[in-house]
Amino acid sequence: MGKKDNGYVKEITSKDEDFSQWYIDIILKAELADYAPIKGCMVIRPYGFSIWENIQKLLDKRFKETGHSNAYFPLFIPERLLQKEAEHVEGFAPEVAWVTHGGRERLAERIAVRPTSETIICSMYSKWINSWRDLPVLINQWANVVRWEKSTRPFLRTAEFLWQEGHTAHVSEEEAEKETLQMLEVYRDFVETELSIPVIKGRKTEKEKFAGALRTYTIEALMSDGKALQAGTSHNLGQHFAKVFDITYLDKDGELKYVWQTSWGVSTRLIGAIIMTHGDNRGLKLPPRVAPIQVILVPITSHGNKEIILDKIREIHNELKPFYRVELDDRDEYTPGWKYNQWEMKGVPLRLELGPKDLEKNQVVLVRRDTGEKLFVEMASLKESVGELLVKIQKTMFDQAKDFVLKNTHVLSSIEELEIIMEKNKGFVKAMWCGNRNCEDIIKEKTGATIRCIPLEQENLGDKCLCCQGKANKMIYLARAY
Amino acid sequence: MGKKDNGYVKEITSKDEDFSQWYIDIILKAELADYAPIKGCMVIRPYGFSIWENIQKLLDKRFKETGHSNAYFPLFIPERLLQKEAEHVEGFAPEVAWVTHGGRERLAERIAVRPTSETIICSMYSKWINSWRDLPVLINQWANVVRWEKSTRPFLRTAEFLWQEGHTAHVSEEEAEKETLQMLEVYRDFVETELSIPVIKGRKTEKEKFAGALRTYTIEALMSDGKALQAGTSHNLGQHFAKVFDITYLDKDGELKYVWQTSWGVSTRLIGAIIMTHGDNRGLKLPPRVAPIQVILVPITSHGNKEIILDKIREIHNELKPFYRVELDDRDEYTPGWKYNQWEMKGVPLRLELGPKDLEKNQVVLVRRDTGEKLFVEMASLKESVGELLVKIQKTMFDQAKDFVLKNTHVLSSIEELEIIMEKNKGFVKAMWCGNRNCEDIIKEKTGATIRCIPLEQENLGDKCLCCQGKANKMIYLARAY
Ligand SMILES: [Zn+2]
Ligand SMILES: [Zn+2]
Repeated sequence: MGKKDNGYVKEITSKDEDFSQWYIDIILKAELADYAPIKGCMVIRPYGFSIWENIQKLLDKRFKETGHSNAYFPLFIPERLLQKEAEHVEGFAPEVAWVTHGGRERLAERIAVRPTSETIICSMYSKWINSWRDLPVLINQWANVVRWEKSTRPFLRTAEFLWQEGHTAHVSEEEAEKETLQMLEVYRDFVETELSIPVIKGRKTEKEKFAGALRTYTIEALMSDGKALQAGTSHNLGQHFAKVFDITYLDKDGELKYVWQTSWGVSTRLIGAIIMTHGDNRGLKLPPRVAPIQVILVPITSHGNKEIILDKIREIHNELKPFYRVELDDRDEYTPGWKYNQWEMKGVPLRLELGPKDLEKNQVVLVRRDTGEKLFVEMASLKESVGELLVKIQKTMFDQAKDFVLKNTHVLSSIEELEIIMEKNKGFVKAMWCGNRNCEDIIKEKTGATIRCIPLEQENLGDKCLCCQGKANKMIYLARAY
Repeated sequence: MGKKDNGYVKEITSKDEDFSQWYIDIILKAELADYAPIKGCMVIRPYGFSIWENIQKLLDKRFKETGHSNAYFPLFIPERLLQKEAEHVEGFAPEVAWVTHGGRERLAERIAVRPTSETIICSMYSKWINSWRDLPVLINQWANVVRWEKSTRPFLRTAEFLWQEGHTAHVSEEEAEKETLQMLEVYRDFVETELSIPVIKGRKTEKEKFAGALRTYTIEALMSDGKALQAGTSHNLGQHFAKVFDITYLDKDGELKYVWQTSWGVSTRLIGAIIMTHGDNRGLKLPPRVAPIQVILVPITSHGNKEIILDKIREIHNELKPFYRVELDDRDEYTPGWKYNQWEMKGVPLRLELGPKDLEKNQVVLVRRDTGEKLFVEMASLKESVGELLVKIQKTMFDQAKDFVLKNTHVLSSIEELEIIMEKNKGFVKAMWCGNRNCEDIIKEKTGATIRCIPLEQENLGDKCLCCQGKANKMIYLARAY
């Protein structure tokens, strides 16, 4: 593989040397995204957007299977609406982009570009919901949102990003809680199954919960630099918004009651999670289920055999096309080695090579992006072999990531140990916590780590708080986070 | 049908009495959209959005089949970018919403909320395109755009709307022109085949072309009140933007050349076109190909037979579900008559009724929304019959609309006749035009009609201009328009 390591691949920074730069290099080199001529915004290029389209397809199916419909609410929210719920406005006001002029006129009231849509959606629900017959309301929206952040990074934190936000209304707290946890499980299943990223399901602390929520649940993933990433959240909003926006319904018993609400979302941040969970020094590694191209076909030709090889590989292309996302790279101006590097950079899970010797033996060579393994496969069983391999790669990628999480999860019982770990290896830390905000603040200040969640699956690791050594009955996950 | 005409349906204004109010009534009653608590914006409700999702699916497939990929460009455009192309900024500046504050800070430069994305996309193309190898660039974007309009109407003209915008770059004028016309044909085929709306393909006059384009092509439809609606446009941008944004490539011959560009788009306005082309005094009529529900199942039960009928209709539901978009309305609290009215209002193409007599005869009743025709169909051939009927309805709706267009297309040769027609029946007018802007202006001023297009299929109706009676060699379509 000597020659191929030169040139093309050299241009990415090594992961160990500078993780942040490696991350940016991959995004630019694999043509996932590019910087836009406006502060903090990015352009999602076709290859990156195609991953998002696959994410949308697979998630949207799950939303619909659980009874949700899509709708579209306005981008603009009048200032007075945004200010109705006190906690909510406090949480979002510092990051709002304000429209003050329409055409050549100054507006009478400032308009917020939505940072999230609870307020505008609640104002509509208040109109639409009248009777118990109107419930539950199960609506999702795919949209762009804007948060004017100071420091940004493509896919992880940008002034504008794409996401989905579910907003539901229910007759009871139990039903709302059930929905909140159902959607959390939808996210877990989606992220683990389709993106091969293992996550921890848990509840956010009071400090870390969504502005205006009763309870926030999260799925937390561990990136390969040892930092955590919040991959999705699901909020039980209780009746906070219902009371402020007057969302009431006439119940079967003739009484007027407030609804119980939830909201939940994931964003283009998931693409950042894919890069940082699976990528290596050769570039991106995409889970087959969301890869824009699952198999790249590369012919290896020389003067005498060019047409025969091209004919055969085109035939293979046509054979595989109805079943997999395959592409044929028959460009003349690049060598096979250059192509290998490019498609490895772009994270294509499987490469199919066909050269004169393979043609003679009626076989092809398949190379796995995840392990580098090379396989010789008979033409007759190609379709099946490709299918099996894609399933295997999807699973191996999950197993490798899971293995990394386990190896980088530390059980600690003192803040001093936490300080040391956070300075060095990082990773997840499991510990016990007394539940006090004070300890939570001290931990963050001293170590840079935050409580990622109180996992739904609790383990009893002791009875003393990591920080104050007082009585503790909550097992938590800590990490430095994106 | 006497009883059913009361109550529910009465609540819509009659089409002949007040077409505008009828249009709004349908939108609100059929729950397609609702007014938002912000001037000129609308909320697209799940039923309306589901039509848009079907439109997206069917169009996106066509875009991909013609080699296009989707991407995503920022919502925000710095003022200096928007101002680069003079005609373009003049065309859009009066309608731009401006962001002036991010968080608590005043921005150094105003930011436009995109009214269309040529400028920001061109700034990226200038970076991405270097060699002939990078061409053509064939990108589409599904997005929201904002135009601060004074007077708005749901789906037809709103401050924010959803659309797709294709943006391509090519090596030659011929290739760009071919692309422009190809996408116009994609739109024609889509609108006629999937929405059952007949259109006229043509070119816009210099006055009516897109701000910054070389040539604009359009598909024009005729609504049932006799006013025209521009249903989609495709622009050959020439090299205007390439020169301003410096989009050059090194050609095979070693010379640095400007690219040739196109852009093309359709929007949620198409939903307005569906309503106004097909709707009647009972409500919406949806073409089966984009209807969220293609078949609504209504059981007709009385005390003794409720369970048997419900069991059977659930069986039918399960049988049809894998093949069609079907829903079962088994709500207890409404009568069958009330349900008929509601689903007619919502425009469901086919209603399936099952009562005790039908059960005995092993048949169901199918009622077509387009013609009102009632059919008795044997259980054994139900699946096939439904499929055939949906195809028939799709076609009948097109034929009816086409028939309306033909009956309401007038061939005229003087502006006096045009004045009379525009005051009374309206409709399309075919006439000859000398090609002078002056005549175009006079026609608009005197009659309110605009030149909708110079159709690609020209007919020779004479040799004198409708307006000045001077020498004319262009056949045009005129109409008052939305
Ligand atoms: Zn403590
Ligand atoms: Zn004239």
